Amino acid sequence: MPTLARPAPQRRTDYRAFVEVTTRWSDNDMYGHMNNAAYYSFFDTAVTSWLISVGLTADPAETMFFVAETGCRYLSEIGYPDRVSVGLRIARLGTSSVGYEIGLFRNEAETAAAEGLFVHVHVDASTRRPAPLPAAMRTALEGILA
Amino acid sequence: MPTLARPAPQRRTDYRAFVEVTTRWSDNDMYGHMNNAAYYSFFDTAVTSWLISVGLTADPAETMFFVAETGCRYLSEIGYPDRVSVGLRIARLGTSSVGYEIGLFRNEAETAAAEGLFVHVHVDASTRRPAPLPAAMRTALEGILA
Amino acid sequence: MPTLARPAPQRRTDYRAFVEVTTRWSDNDMYGHMNNAAYYSFFDTAVTSWLISVGLTADPAETMFFVAETGCRYLSEIGYPDRVSVGLRIARLGTSSVGYEIGLFRNEAETAAAEGLFVHVHVDASTRRPAPLPAAMRTALEGILA
Amino acid sequence: MPTLARPAPQRRTDYRAFVEVTTRWSDNDMYGHMNNAAYYSFFDTAVTSWLISVGLTADPAETMFFVAETGCRYLSEIGYPDRVSVGLRIARLGTSSVGYEIGLFRNEAETAAAEGLFVHVHVDASTRRPAPLPAAMRTALEGILA
Repeated sequence: MPTLARPAPQRRTDYRAFVEVTTRWSDNDMYGHMNNAAYYSFFDTAVTSWLISVGLTADPAETMFFVAETGCRYLSEIGYPDRVSVGLRIARLGTSSVGYEIGLFRNEAETAAAEGLFVHVHVDASTRRPAPLPAAMRTALEGILA
Repeated sequence: MPTLARPAPQRRTDYRAFVEVTTRWSDNDMYGHMNNAAYYSFFDTAVTSWLISVGLTADPAETMFFVAETGCRYLSEIGYPDRVSVGLRIARLGTSSVGYEIGLFRNEAETAAAEGLFVHVHVDASTRRPAPLPAAMRTALEGILA
Repeated sequence: MPTLARPAPQRRTDYRAFVEVTTRWSDNDMYGHMNNAAYYSFFDTAVTSWLISVGLTADPAETMFFVAETGCRYLSEIGYPDRVSVGLRIARLGTSSVGYEIGLFRNEAETAAAEGLFVHVHVDASTRRPAPLPAAMRTALEGILA
Repeated sequence: MPTLARPAPQRRTDYRAFVEVTTRWSDNDMYGHMNNAAYYSFFDTAVTSWLISVGLTADPAETMFFVAETGCRYLSEIGYPDRVSVGLRIARLGTSSVGYEIGLFRNEAETAAAEGLFVHVHVDASTRRPAPLPAAMRTALEGILA
C-alpha cells in the first residue's frame, strides 16, 4: 500500500477542496462510534461529489472510475450526530489513475479524525478497461494536486 | 400495518419539521436509484436528529427508543447525488409510543418522492421495557403533532 | 399500507421458501441490535436470491423489478452474530406486481423475530415502465403463493 | 500504511482461517459490482466471527477492540449474488494490537478478488484505552499467525 505523503495528523489547510456530508444513526456501531466501513462511504461520495462540482461528470454512471485501492487510519472519535467535512487533495496523477488523500474533520475540529487514501482508475464506460484521463479532466484534477 | 392519515402524494406543507440529509454514492443500487433500504436510514436519522434539535436527548444511547414498525411507499425517483429534505409530523402519540409520518423531498421538489411511517417506543434505558413518555418529552412531541 | 393477511407472530411453517443470510457486525446499532434499516437489506436480497434460484433471472439488472412499497414489524431481538433465515410467501399476484410477505427467523427459532411486506413491480428494462408478468414467471411465482 | 507481507495475488492456501459470508443486493453499486465500502463490512465481520468461533468473545461489546487502520486492494470483480469466503491470517501481533491480512474469494475461485489489511487494538472496555492482549487471547491469535 502506498504511504501518505505527509506525517499525521493533517489539518484542514492541508487539503484543497471540501465536501460536507451528514452522518446517520446507522453509521454508529455497538461502541457508539462510526463503524470503520462507513468512513469509506464518505470517501467515494466526497470524491464523486467533487468531480460533479467541477463539471467532470453529470452522470457518475457515464464517466466511469473504478476503485483500485483504499485505506484509512482512524485517529480520533467521530460519529453520528457529528457533521463531517471531507477534505480532498490529489497526491498522484497517473495516465489513467488518480490517487486522492482524504481527511475527515469532525464539526469544527481543525485536526483530522481520520485520514484516507482512495485510488480511482478512469475506465472506458463500454469496455470497462483503463483509459487515459482526457486532457480537460486532467487539468481540472490538477486544480487540487497537493 | 397502520394506514397513512392522508392520501398520497404529500407536499412540504403537510409536514411540521424538516431535517436535511446528504445522499451517498453507495445509496444507489444497480438501477442507479436509491436502494429501498437506504430510505430507512434517512427515517431514523431524521427522527433522532429532530429529537436532539429540540433538546429531548443529548445522547441517543441514554434516551432510548426502540423501533416497533416502519413502512415506505416509493413514489418517484430519488438518489445520489440528490439532496434530500426529510419532512416529519407525528400522527399518533400513545402512552409510550410515537407514530411519525415522513416525507422525502428531492432537491427543490414540492411533492414527496417517498412517504414513510416510523413507530418509536420509548423504553427505560436500564430495563429496556416500554416506559411512559415523560411530560416534557410529550409536550415537545406535540409540537409537530399533525 | 396493506395489512398482513395473518395475525402475528408467524411461524416457519407459514412460509413457502427460505433464504439463509449472514448478519454483519455493522448491522448492529448503538443498542447492540440490528438497525431497523438493515432488515430491509435482507428482504430484497432474499426475494432476488429466490428469483435467481427458480431461474427467473440470471442477471438481476436485466429482469427488472422496482420496489413500490415495503414495511416491517419488529417483534423480538435479532442481530449480529445471529444467523437469519428469511421466509417468503406471496400474498398478492397482480398483473405486474408481486406482494411478498416475509418472516425473519433468528438461529433455530420457530417464531418470526420480524415480519415484513415487500411489493415488487415488474418493469420493462428499457422503458422502466410497469410490464405484465410473463406467463412462465407467473407460474413460478404461484409456486410460493400463500 | 504498512505493506502486505507477500506479493499479490494471494491464494486460499495463503490464509489460515475462513469465514463464509453472504452478499446482499444492496452491496452492489451503479456499476453492478460490490461497492468499495462494502468490502470492509466483510472484514470486521469475518474478524469478529473468527474471534467468537475460537471462544475469545461471547459478546463483542465486552471484549473490545477498536479499529486503528484498514486497507483494501480491489483485484477482480465480485458482488451480489456471489458467495464470498473471507480468508484470515495474522501478520503482526503487538502488545495490544493485531494486524490481520485478509483475502476475499469469489465462489469457487482460488485467487483472491481483493486483499485487505485490518488492524485491531485491544482496549479496556471501561477506560477504552489500549490494554495488553491477555495470555489466552494471544495464544489463540497465534494459531493463525502467518
